Amino acid sequence: MAFSRTYRFRFGDIDHAGVAYFPKLLHLCHCAFEDWWTDGAGTSYAVLMQQRDLGFPAVHLESDFFRPIRFGDELEVHLGVLRIGTSSVEFGYWMTRTGSAEVLCRMRITTAAVSMATIGKRAIPDDIRAHFERFRIDESQFPAGR
Amino acid sequence: MAFSRTYRFRFGDIDHAGVAYFPKLLHLCHCAFEDWWTDGAGTSYAVLMQQRDLGFPAVHLESDFFRPIRFGDELEVHLGVLRIGTSSVEFGYWMTRTGSAEVLCRMRITTAAVSMATIGKRAIPDDIRAHFERFRIDESQFPAGR
Amino acid sequence: MAFSRTYRFRFGDIDHAGVAYFPKLLHLCHCAFEDWWTDGAGTSYAVLMQQRDLGFPAVHLESDFFRPIRFGDELEVHLGVLRIGTSSVEFGYWMTRTGSAEVLCRMRITTAAVSMATIGKRAIPDDIRAHFERFRIDESQFPAGR
Amino acid sequence: MAFSRTYRFRFGDIDHAGVAYFPKLLHLCHCAFEDWWTDGAGTSYAVLMQQRDLGFPAVHLESDFFRPIRFGDELEVHLGVLRIGTSSVEFGYWMTRTGSAEVLCRMRITTAAVSMATIGKRAIPDDIRAHFERFRIDESQFPAGR
Repeated sequence: MAFSRTYRFRFGDIDHAGVAYFPKLLHLCHCAFEDWWTDGAGTSYAVLMQQRDLGFPAVHLESDFFRPIRFGDELEVHLGVLRIGTSSVEFGYWMTRTGSAEVLCRMRITTAAVSMATIGKRAIPDDIRAHFERFRIDESQFPAGR
Repeated sequence: MAFSRTYRFRFGDIDHAGVAYFPKLLHLCHCAFEDWWTDGAGTSYAVLMQQRDLGFPAVHLESDFFRPIRFGDELEVHLGVLRIGTSSVEFGYWMTRTGSAEVLCRMRITTAAVSMATIGKRAIPDDIRAHFERFRIDESQFPAGR
Repeated sequence: MAFSRTYRFRFGDIDHAGVAYFPKLLHLCHCAFEDWWTDGAGTSYAVLMQQRDLGFPAVHLESDFFRPIRFGDELEVHLGVLRIGTSSVEFGYWMTRTGSAEVLCRMRITTAAVSMATIGKRAIPDDIRAHFERFRIDESQFPAGR
Repeated sequence: MAFSRTYRFRFGDIDHAGVAYFPKLLHLCHCAFEDWWTDGAGTSYAVLMQQRDLGFPAVHLESDFFRPIRFGDELEVHLGVLRIGTSSVEFGYWMTRTGSAEVLCRMRITTAAVSMATIGKRAIPDDIRAHFERFRIDESQFPAGR
């Protein structure tokens, strides 16, 4: 089951070419990641970091940008969990426009479970692992783009 | 004596109108503020915060945007100290293009001296006050724009 | 009547002091401005720019930052129209946390009505002026902060 | 031959974990890309876009984040050209701290040569291809990280 959230692509998220500045699309993935914690996994990422001493920084990232995104686009950012390891998780993200199935871009982001105090690796706690499992998708569900 | 530093206005700092997204100009002021600490005041802002428990968050801001700024512009950001209080400092910033005296925008930013541990007000230490004094400008030196 | 919209303050909107990086708060005002066009004024800002050749860049800005804002805060950004001129509009913004009346910061942003083609001043068209009128607030409704 | 440029990692480029927000590292790659055009390739990216109707948007991206980057770090961003196709170029980026050989992160960014007018593919002009050739590195020069 994937998690989806709608975001408006903003006036200032554009570059001189008049299309999305790609770091802003990676920022949007992080917004969806944060909203998934709050609305999908039942604990905000802020609380997770502060009360559980747990964070998930990106360690590896792959992204394909298929089609230009412009100011005024209403984007649906979709998030699924592609792989769960002992202390790492791979998320898949893809973006569509509201009311369209056309995939605009996609990202794989591998995150490491770390202690916020030390930024050192930790095993993923079982209750957190259970949240990840609920949003598992397999590779066939991660769209191939064009 | 004002402090000046050159910055290239970036590809992604533009908005859908093709000109500077104004929050990016305020970010540039903060870049100049950071560089003034490192290169003008002799201690980096990072070190000031970490070793002196001292920071200068903005509490009041006024800005005038006189002329459009575009991708490819090479901007000179000028910084002077307009007023020094017991635990506050007012900085004046203005921007020109390299080789031109035309003022594109200006900002007054009043900052409070705070403890980083508590975010509570502190008196400005004397050695830091001396750094501010060296970059004093008076109102007549803060350009009026158009 | 003020327009209000809720935004989550994001993981990457924080600075080294652990509180809101102030240019991000001005970005949030612009997000509210964009959402006000779409949801309050009945035409998106993108469409306004493209089909009406009309934009409202900031020409003057004043802001007070009263209290620290942190990652995880759910912010309500409120927008009202303080003054309508022939070719300029002054917006007032203020932020609270959801469920609290405490004002965290406020901004006055004066914008100029310009042609997107020329970035030159234009008179505000009557139908657009009517949208502004519907969101008029007077100075007594613009909160004084502390 | 790689192109290198020094950037200070900024106060507002940090996330709630106190380390680099990864979209900001991708922004830094774009800053290095822009500076490479101006200072390495002899024509600014702004001029290339405006006078040659040529741009190089990212179509594919891979990144590894090896070690945390913090406010106050002085980063050297290195850029080399890994592959030149008919209408695409793959750039390799990696970051170190000034005075250290330790690789903090690396990125491969494949860009497509496009017409700015149509955002459609174009062949890379010969003089531009010659600029890319001067900054060719081979895979053995692209650092493996840890």
